[in-house]
Amino acid sequence: MDAAASRVLLDAKRAKRLTFAELGELIGRDEVWVAALFYGQARADETEAAKLVSVLGLDQALAIALTEFPDKGLGPVVPTDPLIYRFYEIMQVYGMPMKAVIHEKFGDGIMSAIDFSLHIDKEPDPKGDRVKVTMSGKFLAYKKF
Amino acid sequence: MDAAASRVLLDAKRAKRLTFAELGELIGRDEVWVAALFYGQARADETEAAKLVSVLGLDQALAIALTEFPDKGLGPVVPTDPLIYRFYEIMQVYGMPMKAVIHEKFGDGIMSAIDFSLHIDKEPDPKGDRVKVTMSGKFLAYKKF
Amino acid sequence: MDAAASRVLLDAKRAKRLTFAELGELIGRDEVWVAALFYGQARADETEAAKLVSVLGLDQALAIALTEFPDKGLGPVVPTDPLIYRFYEIMQVYGMPMKAVIHEKFGDGIMSAIDFSLHIDKEPDPKGDRVKVTMSGKFLAYKKF
Amino acid sequence: MDAAASRVLLDAKRAKRLTFAELGELIGRDEVWVAALFYGQARADETEAAKLVSVLGLDQALAIALTEFPDKGLGPVVPTDPLIYRFYEIMQVYGMPMKAVIHEKFGDGIMSAIDFSLHIDKEPDPKGDRVKVTMSGKFLAYKKF
Amino acid sequence: MDAAASRVLLDAKRAKRLTFAELGELIGRDEVWVAALFYGQARADETEAAKLVSVLGLDQALAIALTEFPDKGLGPVVPTDPLIYRFYEIMQVYGMPMKAVIHEKFGDGIMSAIDFSLHIDKEPDPKGDRVKVTMSGKFLAYKKF
Amino acid sequence: MDAAASRVLLDAKRAKRLTFAELGELIGRDEVWVAALFYGQARADETEAAKLVSVLGLDQALAIALTEFPDKGLGPVVPTDPLIYRFYEIMQVYGMPMKAVIHEKFGDGIMSAIDFSLHIDKEPDPKGDRVKVTMSGKFLAYKKF
Amino acid sequence: MDAAASRVLLDAKRAKRLTFAELGELIGRDEVWVAALFYGQARADETEAAKLVSVLGLDQALAIALTEFPDKGLGPVVPTDPLIYRFYEIMQVYGMPMKAVIHEKFGDGIMSAIDFSLHIDKEPDPKGDRVKVTMSGKFLAYKKF
Amino acid sequence: MDAAASRVLLDAKRAKRLTFAELGELIGRDEVWVAALFYGQARADETEAAKLVSVLGLDQALAIALTEFPDKGLGPVVPTDPLIYRFYEIMQVYGMPMKAVIHEKFGDGIMSAIDFSLHIDKEPDPKGDRVKVTMSGKFLAYKKF
Amino acid sequence: MDAAASRVLLDAKRAKRLTFAELGELIGRDEVWVAALFYGQARADETEAAKLVSVLGLDQALAIALTEFPDKGLGPVVPTDPLIYRFYEIMQVYGMPMKAVIHEKFGDGIMSAIDFSLHIDKEPDPKGDRVKVTMSGKFLAYKKF
Amino acid sequence: MDAAASRVLLDAKRAKRLTFAELGELIGRDEVWVAALFYGQARADETEAAKLVSVLGLDQALAIALTEFPDKGLGPVVPTDPLIYRFYEIMQVYGMPMKAVIHEKFGDGIMSAIDFSLHIDKEPDPKGDRVKVTMSGKFLAYKKF
Repeated sequence: MDAAASRVLLDAKRAKRLTFAELGELIGRDEVWVAALFYGQARADETEAAKLVSVLGLDQALAIALTEFPDKGLGPVVPTDPLIYRFYEIMQVYGMPMKAVIHEKFGDGIMSAIDFSLHIDKEPDPKGDRVKVTMSGKFLAYKKF
Repeated sequence: MDAAASRVLLDAKRAKRLTFAELGELIGRDEVWVAALFYGQARADETEAAKLVSVLGLDQALAIALTEFPDKGLGPVVPTDPLIYRFYEIMQVYGMPMKAVIHEKFGDGIMSAIDFSLHIDKEPDPKGDRVKVTMSGKFLAYKKF
Repeated sequence: MDAAASRVLLDAKRAKRLTFAELGELIGRDEVWVAALFYGQARADETEAAKLVSVLGLDQALAIALTEFPDKGLGPVVPTDPLIYRFYEIMQVYGMPMKAVIHEKFGDGIMSAIDFSLHIDKEPDPKGDRVKVTMSGKFLAYKKF
Repeated sequence: MDAAASRVLLDAKRAKRLTFAELGELIGRDEVWVAALFYGQARADETEAAKLVSVLGLDQALAIALTEFPDKGLGPVVPTDPLIYRFYEIMQVYGMPMKAVIHEKFGDGIMSAIDFSLHIDKEPDPKGDRVKVTMSGKFLAYKKF
Repeated sequence: MDAAASRVLLDAKRAKRLTFAELGELIGRDEVWVAALFYGQARADETEAAKLVSVLGLDQALAIALTEFPDKGLGPVVPTDPLIYRFYEIMQVYGMPMKAVIHEKFGDGIMSAIDFSLHIDKEPDPKGDRVKVTMSGKFLAYKKF
Repeated sequence: MDAAASRVLLDAKRAKRLTFAELGELIGRDEVWVAALFYGQARADETEAAKLVSVLGLDQALAIALTEFPDKGLGPVVPTDPLIYRFYEIMQVYGMPMKAVIHEKFGDGIMSAIDFSLHIDKEPDPKGDRVKVTMSGKFLAYKKF
Repeated sequence: MDAAASRVLLDAKRAKRLTFAELGELIGRDEVWVAALFYGQARADETEAAKLVSVLGLDQALAIALTEFPDKGLGPVVPTDPLIYRFYEIMQVYGMPMKAVIHEKFGDGIMSAIDFSLHIDKEPDPKGDRVKVTMSGKFLAYKKF
Repeated sequence: MDAAASRVLLDAKRAKRLTFAELGELIGRDEVWVAALFYGQARADETEAAKLVSVLGLDQALAIALTEFPDKGLGPVVPTDPLIYRFYEIMQVYGMPMKAVIHEKFGDGIMSAIDFSLHIDKEPDPKGDRVKVTMSGKFLAYKKF
Repeated sequence: MDAAASRVLLDAKRAKRLTFAELGELIGRDEVWVAALFYGQARADETEAAKLVSVLGLDQALAIALTEFPDKGLGPVVPTDPLIYRFYEIMQVYGMPMKAVIHEKFGDGIMSAIDFSLHIDKEPDPKGDRVKVTMSGKFLAYKKF
Repeated sequence: MDAAASRVLLDAKRAKRLTFAELGELIGRDEVWVAALFYGQARADETEAAKLVSVLGLDQALAIALTEFPDKGLGPVVPTDPLIYRFYEIMQVYGMPMKAVIHEKFGDGIMSAIDFSLHIDKEPDPKGDRVKVTMSGKFLAYKKF
């Protein structure tokens, strides 16, 4: 799905005043996954695509775009948007510590970013609400050959 | 704390067969935070530093290194280690979707990577255990001026 | 807000011979914040957007663009424009010294660039006027977890 | 001054429990300038160098290092330390807006980063103390030739 | 395992005139995996490490290095060695075609580089022997969440 | 062949619900080679081009584009698409080990990426199907001169 | 001034067979400064802009473009055009020597690139004419603060 | 000549309180050329080398280093030192204008950076002394073949 | 000459089934030089331009484009096309050896890439034809000043 | 072979006042190939290595270093040494033209940089001697699969 199709979807969502959460409920998916779909980072099946295009009042031809295998990866080598950069910073600052703890708990391997889910929740807090990000990825052990 | 001091700490931990979780219990901190400390990405107070150096059987002079303000950020622009790279990939693939959902839920602002915590848990799963990463950062709204 | 919308706003401002300071007074914001808004680096609320679009004699449809969550970060990795480069140079030359002094005064943490304001004043000086830039960001202490 | 000399100075300062502010008072300079000197980003005259080396209890040979013309610029193209990165982010986000406002107020030219000073103050605030950074640089108008 | 330990292992292998294939037979692993181990890109268990260190006539202390969790990824962003570069070129030239064919055959997902093996064989050919590289990685389907 | 022509070919293939394997059978080539052709990374002769354009129901003018000498190399320095990145990662992690084993088996030289073929097969596996990639490139010995 | 406006100016200059020197005489500026203006690297006042647009037979609307504050800096990080690259090479080869000599002659500071002029002359020479480039920039001494 | 030899020469020059201008007079060369030699960017003949080493009171073995063919090019891709950066900025801002004027005056070709000289003079000026840099390079016309 | 003009020339050449060698004969230039001209890397005089445009059956307006001073340098920092990359690789592998031999034979200086010619010949060889590239550039000795 | 061994070889060659041409005659190789060997870019057999080490009066242990499989590729992404840069520039300026001519003469494929030789000759010329570089590489046609 190219950037133009993505733009059409996002504009329609805005015009309909729908949230990603509402769209997610419609097709039984998490709001982050739906957002990933709208930014061309995930792939819907035909039923999901049809439902979304329909609720947004868009041409069914767009449904085809939603079922393409996307070319993933959104942006510049180092992100400049402050919100996205913070995740880059977390990787820079906590990357080695996470690696050490994951190895200690699981052995040599990685957390999958494919067999993976990511949720975002709002944690009310009197000192200021908090953003809670929960990632869950299958542990993949290095195969010895 | 420089790389040499970091190496000494990690070697002593290995020789004592201590885990980051055990060291964390000793000082009442999460294992990830302790790992961050050992990799020169966090700063201990004098009590914490003294306890850690003591249990590792190291010279108290090292405790001073643990209380320095670290120069943070560990590595190359794009990480090459596969485990760490996956977090870079998550930022590349899910960065814009996370941005969209956080803005939808909180407004214009970011998740703090400073007033922030990160935990790693093992989720047993018959299809293969999963790595669960939980991040919690204060939402910081953009100040209008 | 995309670059085309930004261009329309800047051209209208030029045609109306309005300054950022005048536009700032109109909505009770600093001229730098208004400039940030016009360059797609900040987000107005609906009232602010309507007022600005109106005084510039532009279509209210543009007001919607001003209320989008912007993708922030303007430019190349190292800026080539000499005026902007000087701020990059200040970061290169005075970055570590500022870090040392801020840590000495506040402890381990950072100056927020989100809960943040920036003003520019003209300091008359017989040897040549001076540009005064005043930044004020909340100190965010590193949370231990 | 090379990194080793810088390290010796910083270690001595730490051992003597002296702040940059105290060292600045000693020679009548701002704490930020003294920090710049210690990180090899500024140049002392012989009197200043002698006083500093003396109060730190170091060999006068080090005073020569402090009077060398430094090779300035401290670090990686994009800083990874979060505190320093925020200044890079400010340049990315507010660079064009600052340029627009400075041109509007002063005409075509730049703020000098040479005929320049930088101060850091603590602003007490019930919602959390703030870091105030004040820069003052001479406006340099582009010469037409 | 650091570069110095890697050098010691490779020098001992050379001095003993042992091939990676012979070392692989000793521990029941493929020659490529053993080479990966020697270059600090894989992790042996204690038995494997002890056997290898022993046959190479090296100190058992080196066996510990072989059982560390390695920091993987060897080199520059774009490799300059012509043999290694050809694999970069294959990714540049055939990356999108491989992506298209794998998606066509398997759906949305990737070939794992962790649950993965790689073998190198010599294919005799009258027009010049050929290098045969066989990779086998588990297909990982993108999880919808 | 430019990106627009590539897009037309891929859209026609999709509309006709043809696989690369079916197109490959039509002209007696491997599906990966056909995919390379469609992405502008290989060059067809006139007969091949005519057959493909015909079965896709496209204008014969496109056949000329398929017989141009392509400018090869598809993308960014480090790929961001996860599927393609894994091949970059394999080069980063196994590049030196492959080099060592190829030199051990063949002497000083490289595997050609020109006199080269690449096949992708599906290996059924009860624990999850596997992607098998088989590369075969002529060994080219360094000429001494 | 954008690249399209620049193109129009350069094409008109070519069509009128005017040199930068002749245009410079018209407004009392150096030919290099006029070239900088045409490439969007300098800013004319309204009189200069009107004269130039008039002699080139262009629409007065273009005069507005010439009076904008330009975004300066023309090109890639390392220039590829051989003529421009030689100035990059001079900076690479003679940068440190020039720094040393300027410090020796002037003290700690820089040559301004803003309060600056640059002229190009032809030096006839029997062994081949020479290009003479004369730069003159105000010395700016580092302010101690 | 490596960096260590360069350091020895510069330290000796400092200790003897000699300027590059004085050393230049000794061997009949410009001060910039002597500085280039000391930074390993030029090559002396044996007589020049012997004289310089002698006046600096250094071992004649260093004279050999001064007669080596240097590997030229001093530093990072984009210089961070403000003095040197200004020459990079001049290339960024005035590169295309200089190219246009040189082509207009000389035709298609370049200014040589090899058959080249560079002088630095101090221009007294009541508004502040100026740095004058004069470059002279042979014009090299592109050969048609 | 921009990329569009280049495309028109190459398409016309293809349609007329003319080789660069034939075009070269027409104007008495080498085929490589003519190719350089068509790719916007060289500049024709008016006679050459007129002849070429005429034989290609194109509008004489294109002849003007061929006489512009081109902005040279074609592509990405590291080329991805395999044929062009091999010349980058030759520079990486044989750059220092060539430097050493040229200095040994000629002294301190370079081979000009301006007063330069380049020819490509086919060397028949029973083991496979060879590409012969002959470069001839004037030796330019470093001027001492 | 590491840089230290390379240094020893080059210093011994210098001390013995031997040229690469003389060393080449000793083992029947071209001077460029010998230089490549000395810079760690080629691999000698044992006889060649022994002869070279012997004539240079060095320890036979160095002969082993000369028979290692070198990690090839010498330097920075874009070379800064002017002599080597010119070859990078030739690739930038003439890369596409060479590609076009080679394809026209040979079809789709490349010139090998492995089955390859490179010679450097001095062409006397009254207007200044010329450097002649002759490359000969086997044409490798793209294999269709």
